[in-house]
Amino acid sequence: MINFINLERIKRFIAKRRVAFIASIDNEEFPNVKCMLRPRKIEGLKTIYFSTNTSSMRVKQYRENPKACLYFYRKGLIKYQGVMLKGIMEVLENDEIKKELWRFGDKMFYPKGVTDPDYCVLKFTTTSESNKRITSTLI
Amino acid sequence: MINFINLERIKRFIAKRRVAFIASIDNEEFPNVKCMLRPRKIEGLKTIYFSTNTSSMRVKQYRENPKACLYFYRKGLIKYQGVMLKGIMEVLENDEIKKELWRFGDKMFYPKGVTDPDYCVLKFTTTSESNKRITSTLI
Repeated sequence: MINFINLERIKRFIAKRRVAFIASIDNEEFPNVKCMLRPRKIEGLKTIYFSTNTSSMRVKQYRENPKACLYFYRKGLIKYQGVMLKGIMEVLENDEIKKELWRFGDKMFYPKGVTDPDYCVLKFTTTSESNKRITSTLI
Repeated sequence: MINFINLERIKRFIAKRRVAFIASIDNEEFPNVKCMLRPRKIEGLKTIYFSTNTSSMRVKQYRENPKACLYFYRKGLIKYQGVMLKGIMEVLENDEIKKELWRFGDKMFYPKGVTDPDYCVLKFTTTSESNKRITSTLI
């Protein structure tokens, strides 16, 4: 059973991070990691949305293998803390979600605007409760 | 062909980082990510050593599936930079390498000293040249 108080603490921890690390499986079945800008939308710890380039290598990998994990990290003065969430990543290209997540300034990344075919949304859905805890280690 | 100047730049980038992110594949074939203390030894970009707990989940995963990647990351004021290396992770438990990588203060993590059975070494060997570049994204 997941402790409710800890879940709230983890939600706050994730919401405060400026970047996220996303992991995928490549076509040689090796894990891959990439740093991403912070999520655009967080629904509890269940669903987390990112915006990204449709042409990116991670999008290609998630279309072929949706198994994913997210990692959020904070370096403090004497220790670091991390949270890992395991789940499935979907690539969304419908206008509704693209409009919802569009932010002022995104034209820098997607010059054609909200309907730019190179703009898409990554939707992560947590499938495992096993790693929903903040781990910390002394630096 | 890898550009020699870029390789030197990447080596310096990695050597300066205080933490590393290591990725593994778990028993459900999902990618996993964890933050680790900086490598204990770096031999070019070919071989990178970490110290860790033999009882840890990552050690168990690498014994079952050695496919791995490392990710090094730096957050600047207006952009972040990252380097990913793809390769194989071995779990070493021989006294020679354990002694070589032992540092003052490690008794905090491994109370029984350099021969503590819960102290082991992760040896990462790069297998792919494909991701040896520094990628950067505006924050």
